[in-house]
Amino acid sequence: MEKLEQLYEGKAKKVFKTDQPDAFIIEYKDDATAFNGEKKGSIGGKGVINNKMTGVIFTMLEKHGIPTHFVKILSENEQLVQAVTIFPLEVIIRNTAAGSICKRLGLEEGLKLKAPIFEFCYKNDDFGDPMINDYHVIAMELATPEEIEIIREMTFKINDILKAYFLEKGINLIDFKIEFGKNNRGQIVLADEISPDTCRFWDVKTNEKLDKDRFRRNLGNIEEAYEEMLKRVQA
Amino acid sequence: MEKLEQLYEGKAKKVFKTDQPDAFIIEYKDDATAFNGEKKGSIGGKGVINNKMTGVIFTMLEKHGIPTHFVKILSENEQLVQAVTIFPLEVIIRNTAAGSICKRLGLEEGLKLKAPIFEFCYKNDDFGDPMINDYHVIAMELATPEEIEIIREMTFKINDILKAYFLEKGINLIDFKIEFGKNNRGQIVLADEISPDTCRFWDVKTNEKLDKDRFRRNLGNIEEAYEEMLKRVQA
Repeated sequence: MEKLEQLYEGKAKKVFKTDQPDAFIIEYKDDATAFNGEKKGSIGGKGVINNKMTGVIFTMLEKHGIPTHFVKILSENEQLVQAVTIFPLEVIIRNTAAGSICKRLGLEEGLKLKAPIFEFCYKNDDFGDPMINDYHVIAMELATPEEIEIIREMTFKINDILKAYFLEKGINLIDFKIEFGKNNRGQIVLADEISPDTCRFWDVKTNEKLDKDRFRRNLGNIEEAYEEMLKRVQA
Repeated sequence: MEKLEQLYEGKAKKVFKTDQPDAFIIEYKDDATAFNGEKKGSIGGKGVINNKMTGVIFTMLEKHGIPTHFVKILSENEQLVQAVTIFPLEVIIRNTAAGSICKRLGLEEGLKLKAPIFEFCYKNDDFGDPMINDYHVIAMELATPEEIEIIREMTFKINDILKAYFLEKGINLIDFKIEFGKNNRGQIVLADEISPDTCRFWDVKTNEKLDKDRFRRNLGNIEEAYEEMLKRVQA
């Protein structure tokens, strides 16, 4: 498998073509940003940790019947994935109120929601990834009604699997952001990553934050939190 | 019918109790605000026009099978309505992209949408009436899933009726905001108002704006636009 030209560079990852039309290589970076790029920095070892953790979790999800783009780990910070076209949607599940939603709607951080909140955001940095709903998705042709239903159903199933999985590791899954893509066979698969960059993880006993909020809010022990999460996932 | 103590004062209306438990009196004001209260002013004759126009349109909607809170016009700027508890939701339909959505999602003003966009906003000035979706409505207990479905179905029906009604008057209904309440019998009814304050009306031939955007954007001939709309509705 030969790594060819870079297709895309995001805030935390680079995506490369390969010599095979249905395979990409993702390279995970240590770069960290927050608040739509206003805060910038680096978290030592993050690329390696998120690469490994995403590999473990996507493999686990596949075993539970969730199709993902993940193929295999290639190196400390690289993984082989299916070539997919990403839907320009950030798909969010909130089990507990935390972060932006608290300020936006006046909810107390830590409020356990009676039912999970599902949100779509339009993945577009120029507009700050604004929240949208099904009607915007359809009107802007970001996905069809049928694709929306597949994405929604997969997302709630992923939430159920992840909540139980992390609870066994002593972690409350507060919320997460995932992305979906369509592979060359037209199948909708989970793409992107699942890591402390894209989830809020709180220790069940202490409520200690073990995710990117340590970076966003300057809480210290950032690298240690990422390492702790990888340790628990690999246990 | 005796007008008793004021229950509520909004930006454009006051609501009063009456000596009957299932009736309120709404008094329409000339006050105008925009951009969540940042711009303040007054539009001469607006209270009288919006009172009359809402009376005509709610009566027309009732004839088409939409239950509303409207009972009768009492004076130039007062109307008798059913006592209702308002859902803290702004319910929006967009047939054509205009206003805030253009900036938020990068859509061109005047873009005819392939299908109407339905939006909920959380009616709360402290948070700037943020957009939410069904999941937030349910989690925050602003309405039940069953109430959401009734509101959504009524809103699309109202859109169909209003689009046809205004087209006959030479007006394109670009978008509108409505509110719903529950009366003392537990029935969900259309409440609030339908006027140039709460709709975007564009002349079919000239695309001239005949609504509050003339105030928001300092386009001049504000009173004339409101008068023109009342004239067309009364024709």
